[in-house]
Amino acid sequence: MPITGNSIIAGTPVNGTDGEVNAINPATGEKLEPAFGMVSVAQLEDATKAAEAAFDTYRATSPEVRAAFLERIADNIEAIGAELTERGTAETGLPAGRLEGERGRTIGQLRMFAAVVRQGDHLQVRIDPAQPDRKPAARVDIRQRHIPLGPVAVFGASNFPLAFSTAGGDTASALAAGCPVIVKAHNAHPGTAELVGQALAKAVKDSDLPDGVFSLLFGAGRSVGQALVADPRIKAVGFTGSQAGGIALMKTAAARPEPIPVYAEMSSINPVFVLPGAIADDAAALAGDFVGSLTMGAGQFCTNPGLVFVPEGTTGDAFINAAAGSLRSCAGQTMLTPGIAGAWEEGVKELAAADGVEQVAEGTPGATENAPAPRLFSTTAENFAASPRLQEEVFGAAGLFVRYSDAAELATATENLQGQLTATVHYAPGDEAAARELLPVLERRVGRILFNGWPTGVEVGHAMVHGGPFPATSDSRSTSVGSLAIHRFQRPVSYQNVPAELLPEPLQDNNPWKLNRRLDGSVETLKD
Amino acid sequence: MPITGNSIIAGTPVNGTDGEVNAINPATGEKLEPAFGMVSVAQLEDATKAAEAAFDTYRATSPEVRAAFLERIADNIEAIGAELTERGTAETGLPAGRLEGERGRTIGQLRMFAAVVRQGDHLQVRIDPAQPDRKPAARVDIRQRHIPLGPVAVFGASNFPLAFSTAGGDTASALAAGCPVIVKAHNAHPGTAELVGQALAKAVKDSDLPDGVFSLLFGAGRSVGQALVADPRIKAVGFTGSQAGGIALMKTAAARPEPIPVYAEMSSINPVFVLPGAIADDAAALAGDFVGSLTMGAGQFCTNPGLVFVPEGTTGDAFINAAAGSLRSCAGQTMLTPGIAGAWEEGVKELAAADGVEQVAEGTPGATENAPAPRLFSTTAENFAASPRLQEEVFGAAGLFVRYSDAAELATATENLQGQLTATVHYAPGDEAAARELLPVLERRVGRILFNGWPTGVEVGHAMVHGGPFPATSDSRSTSVGSLAIHRFQRPVSYQNVPAELLPEPLQDNNPWKLNRRLDGSVETLKD
Repeated sequence: MPITGNSIIAGTPVNGTDGEVNAINPATGEKLEPAFGMVSVAQLEDATKAAEAAFDTYRATSPEVRAAFLERIADNIEAIGAELTERGTAETGLPAGRLEGERGRTIGQLRMFAAVVRQGDHLQVRIDPAQPDRKPAARVDIRQRHIPLGPVAVFGASNFPLAFSTAGGDTASALAAGCPVIVKAHNAHPGTAELVGQALAKAVKDSDLPDGVFSLLFGAGRSVGQALVADPRIKAVGFTGSQAGGIALMKTAAARPEPIPVYAEMSSINPVFVLPGAIADDAAALAGDFVGSLTMGAGQFCTNPGLVFVPEGTTGDAFINAAAGSLRSCAGQTMLTPGIAGAWEEGVKELAAADGVEQVAEGTPGATENAPAPRLFSTTAENFAASPRLQEEVFGAAGLFVRYSDAAELATATENLQGQLTATVHYAPGDEAAARELLPVLERRVGRILFNGWPTGVEVGHAMVHGGPFPATSDSRSTSVGSLAIHRFQRPVSYQNVPAELLPEPLQDNNPWKLNRRLDGSVETLKD
Repeated sequence: MPITGNSIIAGTPVNGTDGEVNAINPATGEKLEPAFGMVSVAQLEDATKAAEAAFDTYRATSPEVRAAFLERIADNIEAIGAELTERGTAETGLPAGRLEGERGRTIGQLRMFAAVVRQGDHLQVRIDPAQPDRKPAARVDIRQRHIPLGPVAVFGASNFPLAFSTAGGDTASALAAGCPVIVKAHNAHPGTAELVGQALAKAVKDSDLPDGVFSLLFGAGRSVGQALVADPRIKAVGFTGSQAGGIALMKTAAARPEPIPVYAEMSSINPVFVLPGAIADDAAALAGDFVGSLTMGAGQFCTNPGLVFVPEGTTGDAFINAAAGSLRSCAGQTMLTPGIAGAWEEGVKELAAADGVEQVAEGTPGATENAPAPRLFSTTAENFAASPRLQEEVFGAAGLFVRYSDAAELATATENLQGQLTATVHYAPGDEAAARELLPVLERRVGRILFNGWPTGVEVGHAMVHGGPFPATSDSRSTSVGSLAIHRFQRPVSYQNVPAELLPEPLQDNNPWKLNRRLDGSVETLKD
C-alpha cells in the first residue's frame, strides 16, 4: 500500500485539515514526500468516539480471537517488506540493519502478547467461594478478574520508529489487555507510521473487529497530543519521549475532571558503577565495550549509559584513557532529527561549561548532516553530588565520568541520584562488600539492575522491567517492556453473588478458558 | 496503657507543640480528655526521617519475621480489651457491638496479610534463565521481584475508627508490603487512635524492628496532612474520606518534585438497580432489607446504597411504599461528628430543594445529639440524567429513588453515572435480558458488582475489590480492602546477570523462601 499522507480514523483514511507536516531526511536535510495532513480536534474526536464505541465489543473477545488479531498485526508488518526499512532509514537516519532488528523486536512483542493473552494469567482470576455455614455470618460467593481500562492514547517515540511507535510495546500491550488504541504518530517518521498503521488497520478488518479498535493520527505534537489526553473517552496514556513532554501530559491527565493514568517513559542517565576489581584485569576491553554502548544508535537510547562512576587512581585512569582512545576513533552517526541533534549540541555545551567538568575526549563528526562527534567528560564525585544539573539527560552520545575516592563517597553520590531506568555494576569477586552496600541503594532508585554488561539492548521477556522511579518514568509501578506491561491497562472488578448464567467466561465454574485461578488465595494451575 | 494525648514518633511519645485538639462525644457534645498535642512540621519530619532510615532494614525482613510482626499487632490490639470499645464508643457514637465487630475485622485483616506475606505470591517473582546459545544473540539471566515503594502516609478515616484507621487496611497492607507507615490520626477519635498506636508501637519493639517502622501523628488535618504528603521521604499515600479531602491530597502529590501514588477512597452513591422481576414476589421484604442497609451505622459507610433505580408502575410503587413505611419507623442514630451531621443536613436540604425531587418519607430523630431522622426522596430517570448534582454523595442515611420506564431509560441513566465503588442488581430469572445489557455498563463504572444483596458489609478476602473509577477512588487499578491491596505499595525491579552471591533470597536458585515463581512466563507452584 502506498504512503498517502492520511491519518487512519477507525479504518478510514482521512486527510487532516489542520495543516501539514513532512518528514525530513536527517542525513541530508531533504524534505520527504508526501505531506501529511494534521488532524483537527473534531477529527481526533471521531477517533476517540469510535474507540469508545468499539470498547465493549473488543474487550469481550475470546483469548483466541484477540491473540490471532495480534499475530495478524505481526504478520502484516512482516509483509510490508523492504519498503518499511527504506522509508524508516530515510526518515530516521538509522541504519537498515538496526531497523530490521527493530522490526523483529516489534513482531516478537506482538507474538509474545498473543501468547500472554492465550495463557490468560493476566486476567488474575480469584474466586472466594460461598461459605453458607460460616459463623458469625455466611460468606457469599465473590469472584474477581481484571478488565481493560478503556481506550488508550499511545504516543510514537522518535527513537524507536517501530518498537515504540505505531504497533510498538505500548500499543501491543494495550491491545492485548483489551483496550482500543489511538496512536499519535511522531512527526519525525510519519511514513513509517502510516505503513505500520495500514498493516494494523488491515488486521482489524481481517479479524472482523470494530474499526474503532485502532486509529492513527498525524497532528501537531502539542495541541493534538494534549487534546487526545484531555479527551474524556481516553482512559490511559502510553508515552516514550522527553521529560518536558511527559510531564506536560501528566499535568493534563491529572487536571481532567476524571484523572487518568499516564505511563510516560522519559529520561534516564543510567549510571554505571565501575568497582575497583572489575578494571584490575582488562580495563581496555571494558572501556571499549562502554564506548560501544555509549555510541550505539548515536546514543539515542533511553538506556544509554551517560554516567560512569570510576575509581580514582591508576586503574581508573587506565580505564578512562582507554575509553578516550576508543572514542577518538568513533565517527558521529546521523541523529534522528535536526532538533534532537541541536538539543544534544546545547546539552554538550552546557556540560563542557559546567564548573568542575572537563572534556576527556571527542570523536569525529560523521559524514552526514546531524552527525556530531561523540564526547566524554569527567568530574569528581564531590562536584557531582553538589551539581544537580549534571543529572540532566543529554540525549545522544555524550558520557560523564565521575571519579570516586572510596565506598563512602560513592554511596553519597548514589544516594543523590534521581530515579533511573537502569543501574549497571561492573564487578569482580573482590568487590563483593562494595556491591552489597550499593545494591539496596540502587533498588530504591532504578527499575533494572544489571551486572557486568551494558544497559542498552533491552530484552523483551517476562522478567524485564523497563521502568523506574520518577523522573525516569511517571509511574514506577509499571514496565513498558516485557509481558508485565499488559498490567498497566487493567483494573480489578469483583463479582459478588452473580448468578451463574451472567458470569463472564473467565469466572464461570467450568473454567471454559482453562485459566490458572486463585481459589481462596491459592493458585490452582490448570494449564502449566 | 493510659491515653496520654501524645503522638508516637518512631516509638517515642511526643507531645505535639502546634496546638491541641480534644475529642467530642457526638452523642452528648461532651469534650473528652485528655487534650492531644498537635505536631509541628519539624516533629512530622522526625517521623518521616525515622521511617526513611528504617526502610531498608524493614523491607529486608524475612516473610516469617514480617508475618509474626503483623500477628503481634493483632494480638496487641486484642489485648487492649474493653477500654478500646469504651473509648471508641465515646468518641464516635458507634454502638459497642459495631466496634467489637470492627475490631475483629481489623485483627482479621492483619492476620490475613500475615498469611499473604508467608505465602509470598505478592513478590511476583519471575525468572527468565540465560540462554547462552540463543541466536542471533545470547540471552542473559533476568529475574524480577516486586519491592516496597518506601514510607507510606496513612490517613485515619472517621467512619472506621479501627478497620480504616491506625492499624486498618491501608496500614496493614503497607506494612505487609514492607513499607514503614506514618499514620495521621483522625481528630474525631484520637484516643482510639492512640490506644491502637501504642499496641502497634509495642509490636515494633517486641519484634526488634527499627522504631521508625511506625509513627502516629496528631495534627491539624489540612496543614499536617498536606505537609506529610509533600514530604519527599513519603512514597505513597492511603486515604479514606471525603472527595474534597482526597482531591486535595492528589493535587499535593502530583505537584511534588517527585509525584507519588495516592490511593484515596472518596465518595460513592452505590447505585442499586431493582429489575422488574425482583419485586414481583415480595417487594416488602426487599424494601425492608434496603432500609436496613441504608440506615446501618447511621448510613456512614462508603458503600451506603444512596441511589435506587426502581421501575415505574404498581410493583415499583409497592416497593417504594414499603420502604417508606419501614423508614418512618426508623430512629436516627448518632452520627460520627457534629460536622458530619451538619454536612448531612445541608446535603438533605439541597436534595429536598432540587428540581423534580420529592421527599418520600422521613424517620424520627434519635434520642442523642447529632442523630437526625433518615430520609428518602424520589425523582424520575429523565430528571436524574439531566441533574449531575443529584450524583453528589450525601454521607449518611439519605436515599434517592430514581423511577425508570424501560430498559432504554435505565441504560441512559446508567451511562451517565460517575465512577462508583459498587453497583447492586436485584434480579429474578425473568430479568436476564435487562441484566445482560446492564452488566458491561456497570463494569466500566464500578469496582464491585453484586446481585441480590446489599453493598454494605465488605468481605475481607482475596477476591474483594473495594475500589472503582474516579471519583469513587483516585486510582481504579487498586483495592483498599482484601489481599490484593498489598500490590498498591510495590513496584517491580529486575536483576540482570546478577551474581548468585548477590541475589536477594526470593530470586536465588535454591528458592529458600519456597515461592511460587514464574519461569519463562509459566508459574511453577511449589507450595500449593
